[in-house]
Amino acid sequence: MTAFASLASLRTACAALPSGNEAAALAVAARQDQLTKPPGSLGRLETLVAWLARWQERSTPRLDRVDIVVFAGNHGVVAQGVSPYPATVTVQMVANFERGGAAVNQIAAVAGARLRVTPTALDAPTADFTVAPAMDEAGFLAAVNLGAGMVEPGLDLLCLGEMGIGNTTAAAALCAALFGGEGARWAGRGTGLDTAGVAHKAAVVDAALLRHRNILGEPLQIALALGGRELAAILGAVVAARHNRVPVLLDGFVCTAAAAPLARLTQGGLDHATLAHLSAEAGHRALADALGLTPLLSFDMRLGEASGAALAVPILRAALACHTGMATFADAGVSDRA
Amino acid sequence: MTAFASLASLRTACAALPSGNEAAALAVAARQDQLTKPPGSLGRLETLVAWLARWQERSTPRLDRVDIVVFAGNHGVVAQGVSPYPATVTVQMVANFERGGAAVNQIAAVAGARLRVTPTALDAPTADFTVAPAMDEAGFLAAVNLGAGMVEPGLDLLCLGEMGIGNTTAAAALCAALFGGEGARWAGRGTGLDTAGVAHKAAVVDAALLRHRNILGEPLQIALALGGRELAAILGAVVAARHNRVPVLLDGFVCTAAAAPLARLTQGGLDHATLAHLSAEAGHRALADALGLTPLLSFDMRLGEASGAALAVPILRAALACHTGMATFADAGVSDRA
Repeated sequence: MTAFASLASLRTACAALPSGNEAAALAVAARQDQLTKPPGSLGRLETLVAWLARWQERSTPRLDRVDIVVFAGNHGVVAQGVSPYPATVTVQMVANFERGGAAVNQIAAVAGARLRVTPTALDAPTADFTVAPAMDEAGFLAAVNLGAGMVEPGLDLLCLGEMGIGNTTAAAALCAALFGGEGARWAGRGTGLDTAGVAHKAAVVDAALLRHRNILGEPLQIALALGGRELAAILGAVVAARHNRVPVLLDGFVCTAAAAPLARLTQGGLDHATLAHLSAEAGHRALADALGLTPLLSFDMRLGEASGAALAVPILRAALACHTGMATFADAGVSDRA
Repeated sequence: MTAFASLASLRTACAALPSGNEAAALAVAARQDQLTKPPGSLGRLETLVAWLARWQERSTPRLDRVDIVVFAGNHGVVAQGVSPYPATVTVQMVANFERGGAAVNQIAAVAGARLRVTPTALDAPTADFTVAPAMDEAGFLAAVNLGAGMVEPGLDLLCLGEMGIGNTTAAAALCAALFGGEGARWAGRGTGLDTAGVAHKAAVVDAALLRHRNILGEPLQIALALGGRELAAILGAVVAARHNRVPVLLDGFVCTAAAAPLARLTQGGLDHATLAHLSAEAGHRALADALGLTPLLSFDMRLGEASGAALAVPILRAALACHTGMATFADAGVSDRA
């Protein structure tokens, strides 16, 4: 898709979203009822296939091309002491992804998915959003466009994730600005803060909310002022995926927060996205509830880097395999209900 | 392992259970803390690997040989009108498994697991347990031994499941007898009963409890009188797995109920088993709670046939892949906490 030249053109793309293919979803449901199982007995596996069909706009969906994209970013707000790890870890972890040593590399292999990692100007952190907007408009749009550009046409599923020391603070600030409540509602332990550290992080979020109180009604301005480049890239990828018929698996707290402005801009804006895993990070359940997202998995993970999204891919593969591979009652000569 | 010649020898095997290898589990935990992630941030994936290590008795567990075994049985209690499907469906579904047309065939392929299906004298249903014990001692032991014999030494993981028209009634009766409460606490919709059908099923369970009130203190007598052959086979497989260092994934309501007598006989008797999926069948949550089992997945499935157990295999593969494939902080040159 064409790059967004302005906030206005991005806003337009966020408002004019395709609504999915209802007929494809209904075709899936009709076939499900003929397969050799009691009606509805595969539960969410059945609705997941219908969801893939609706957003791929294919009555028999595919999972041949599954991509995992991890965006990395650095954050000026780490100057406020919001992480137990130094910011240098972001670039070190990108190298670790590239060498295949991180959790998501292993899970991607199990999932049969291609992993791509995209750093966003790691040597130039965003501004400390307690004193200034994290990005200017050009920087924000560049990150959104970077993310949108990672969505290749013809992809069957896109798993999104992030890495960035300090970015749970950005996510908490985004959530507070988009959904209300003080920093304490949204700030969590991140990579391992103690209770005092979480309280300090909440205070940092409150300071940021006060600093940017004039833009709190505008989701894209919030993403620009309180987010980060990797979060903006995720937002761009989610928007582009919707326009390119690519269903999305969202990862944990930061990834979900990054996508949230689209839901605030447009009713049903995240209908093409499924939340893969409910993070142990404090704010994620409230965020999922606010967005009406029911997570597929809940394993107390809090790692990010698309680990939760990648973990859900085999579940989708199993759901699709049942749909396409099972015999019907007629085929198998199995008696239907009396 | 040697076949059980009597209830007494089975009872002895259920009492003298190996306790697992604590050192192997601790070795896993020690390595987890060196991997390139915040400590504990892979949540349950970390504890799953330690669980595999403890019960395989290997500090680096494997998932090279994963078996799925589905036992099928027919039930005299179907004469009481407890299922909307005719009993002939059991043998039809066994044929469907053998031709590769059922849900579990598709999920097994995604899981990279070998599927075996074992019918248990489908042409001779167990007795209607509202009027007589479902099995006599010889029949019960034959089924237990059949199940135990399916556990090959050297297996890395065993997924258990069942198929049998009428067997959610047997499972409900087992649960009521083992854990208390009336039939209404444990009877669910099964393959699709309506509300009146569920009430009737509960009454059938109550009649069975009354009929067998004299054996309600003895878990193996309960399994004999109120269970079924496929449930007895699952019990035998769970006991044999413990003695053969094979961790077990339990499937839904019927499978869990089948294994429950071991937990009633011996504290910690199911510690080598993980509950893969919380079924939508009414009694499963209460049963899981009674056994202290936290399910891995919850997708509103209610199919049985090891579908939920098979679905959890890729989760275990991902957990193990992270454990064995991730770089350590030292290997990767990633800074640890400040």
